[in-house]
Amino acid sequence: MATINSNYLKLPGSYLFSMIGEKVREYEAAHPEKKVIRLGIGDVTQPIAPAVIDALHSAVDEMGKAESFRGYAPDLGYEFLRNTIAEKDFQDRGCDISADEIFVSDGAKCDCGNIQEIFGTDNVIAVQDPVYPVYVDSNVMAGRTGSYDESLGQFRNVIYLPCRKENGYVPQLPDRVPDLIYLCFPNNPTGAVMKKDQLQTWVDYARKNGSVLLFDAAYEAYIHEMDVPHSIYECEGAGECAIEFRSFSKTAGFTGLRLGFTVIPKTLEVEGVRLWDLWARRHGTKYNGAPYIVQRAGEAVYSEAGRAQVSEQIARYMENAGIIRNGLLEAGYEVSGGVNAPYIWLKTPGNMTSWEFFDALLERADVVGTPGSGFGPHGEHYFRLTAFGSRENTIEAVERMKRMS
Amino acid sequence: MATINSNYLKLPGSYLFSMIGEKVREYEAAHPEKKVIRLGIGDVTQPIAPAVIDALHSAVDEMGKAESFRGYAPDLGYEFLRNTIAEKDFQDRGCDISADEIFVSDGAKCDCGNIQEIFGTDNVIAVQDPVYPVYVDSNVMAGRTGSYDESLGQFRNVIYLPCRKENGYVPQLPDRVPDLIYLCFPNNPTGAVMKKDQLQTWVDYARKNGSVLLFDAAYEAYIHEMDVPHSIYECEGAGECAIEFRSFSKTAGFTGLRLGFTVIPKTLEVEGVRLWDLWARRHGTKYNGAPYIVQRAGEAVYSEAGRAQVSEQIARYMENAGIIRNGLLEAGYEVSGGVNAPYIWLKTPGNMTSWEFFDALLERADVVGTPGSGFGPHGEHYFRLTAFGSRENTIEAVERMKRMS
Repeated sequence: MATINSNYLKLPGSYLFSMIGEKVREYEAAHPEKKVIRLGIGDVTQPIAPAVIDALHSAVDEMGKAESFRGYAPDLGYEFLRNTIAEKDFQDRGCDISADEIFVSDGAKCDCGNIQEIFGTDNVIAVQDPVYPVYVDSNVMAGRTGSYDESLGQFRNVIYLPCRKENGYVPQLPDRVPDLIYLCFPNNPTGAVMKKDQLQTWVDYARKNGSVLLFDAAYEAYIHEMDVPHSIYECEGAGECAIEFRSFSKTAGFTGLRLGFTVIPKTLEVEGVRLWDLWARRHGTKYNGAPYIVQRAGEAVYSEAGRAQVSEQIARYMENAGIIRNGLLEAGYEVSGGVNAPYIWLKTPGNMTSWEFFDALLERADVVGTPGSGFGPHGEHYFRLTAFGSRENTIEAVERMKRMS
Repeated sequence: MATINSNYLKLPGSYLFSMIGEKVREYEAAHPEKKVIRLGIGDVTQPIAPAVIDALHSAVDEMGKAESFRGYAPDLGYEFLRNTIAEKDFQDRGCDISADEIFVSDGAKCDCGNIQEIFGTDNVIAVQDPVYPVYVDSNVMAGRTGSYDESLGQFRNVIYLPCRKENGYVPQLPDRVPDLIYLCFPNNPTGAVMKKDQLQTWVDYARKNGSVLLFDAAYEAYIHEMDVPHSIYECEGAGECAIEFRSFSKTAGFTGLRLGFTVIPKTLEVEGVRLWDLWARRHGTKYNGAPYIVQRAGEAVYSEAGRAQVSEQIARYMENAGIIRNGLLEAGYEVSGGVNAPYIWLKTPGNMTSWEFFDALLERADVVGTPGSGFGPHGEHYFRLTAFGSRENTIEAVERMKRMS
């Protein structure tokens, strides 16, 4: 008699963004005349850059001819892409990362969700609170989190690292030592960053305690200020304790193309075993590579034309961020983020809960955002807006929010 | 202090196809003058069909324009693709499967590897022996198989269902009831099929015992004989006990494009929980959809032109299968498969082990095949060749093998 993985039943409600999608669908069905503006899910709106489109077309042509057709991709990704990534994203920044430490994948979400598999189920995880829900949820599914405490809105065996206004949304070292520490900087949802010396503290802490850092750098392309590390490997010793996740989704608008990568230095060992070997084995067994045409698209992001076009897109989103940030400040909101990240993090007015504000914003301004509480208990009474809308929609949304208050 | 998932250490050697790749790379490096022919990994060689290439180009164009750009795909796949699949692959065959029971993914390998996650770790699995290694390996990683018995070449807590010449490579019902039963038909590697009444026996057995059937139909497009079911849902009651995996890899040459899907009927419950809900939750949390352009490519496979072109490709591969099958029979080999599947399964001559024959074939004929023992202990002394080579290479490989003997 088959049984289910009962850990799934510990997950409260449905996945945050699925739930938002459902609410919005219902609202739109009930109010077909309304023009709803989505600044909720962090999905981009600018089209794929021309240099990338060209690369896609030419790769598609290759797939249509016997002499240039490509079947299964190499397990860890094509060398043309891995070499480019290693050079441009790491070596050019002085990070000692080589091409064969890059694992190409179909996105950082999958990698962040799957990475926990290579660790023991007895490992205790720590997460920033609030943070991207996948870290906790994937560990719930694996049985690593204990049960859910309804009253606290927390899992009993997870170490939550509160990120609030008082600490600049940067967590303090915990009292109890975690085995696995998820860090996301620039942070989703708060938009906060760590300076290099702050991140170094975490690297030193992990090395001293035998913890592994799982560093999600999906938003590194949005870093604007100096002295904010783009990669954890800018810190000394990170090669012995850290895994890094990267994404093309927000860097180059690949949310619908699906491409990302994970970096596991060969120097990173746990119990005398290289995590590189375990992840390579997982890739070989349960994954079959990102599409060739998409890997060519990824390569084009690093070309001269690609870089210029993509930088312009990012600049445009960051102008949106400025518009939201300044507009909400004018309207009297308490706001952070939006400087080194495409996310604006605001305090809900009148001490509304995050979901109350979600409903109010949808009903009174036809604007969709993301309830902060969906990112963890310390996100309650906060709300996330993203800079990924069109310029027109962004301005319109801010105007509507000003009229609301 | 972090710990690793020690189940990974139970896996003997590296993943079969990675190991073959390594051996071949070494051989080619040592013998650069040799023209090695690969009939090993089941990778296709014909280019993507013109109708699919057209669909890719036009989807790429859409991604390059703001008004038609697509970001994150719907969790379970685009409706245009799911509707087409439900109609053409299932409803047209009289199977009661609806579009929202189709989960689009980046390939059957991932889905076959990941599906075990939604079941309890105490579930006992049964697999055909020999069979595609991912079923067992993914369960080893999850700790469901017990330890490896070197002398038997088996995991202690897996029920192996021997498939040999004597039973026509179709397994008998086991003595001990498994919780999860992986069935792969047309079979990889033996090329065997089950007739409908045989498959019905398994459906009845699963329903009677509360087992779940995990039916891998990746090669259904190669079925040639009548009365061989293309889908398990052709059997009565399968909607209450079976999950089916499908792939575009072999159907339409998508090994390098990555597209597949899993079918979970909403009527399939375990412990009163719909497996549909669990898999949907997994998709929402750990997966982010197949690329829009690839889903459009998948849709084009079902168009009139696409169907015709793809059928021609399959016919061409099956002609290759005939060439290999007949050539080897002439040369005195004992051969099966190659009629309803692109795989030819041969008995190694002179009672050589599978790996001995692998080495001999590589060294004496410069032909790469797949050792049967890599698919399970009952594959020892067998060997798999695939029909996916070019016509020229296929003929040349068979000639070389004839000269060997």
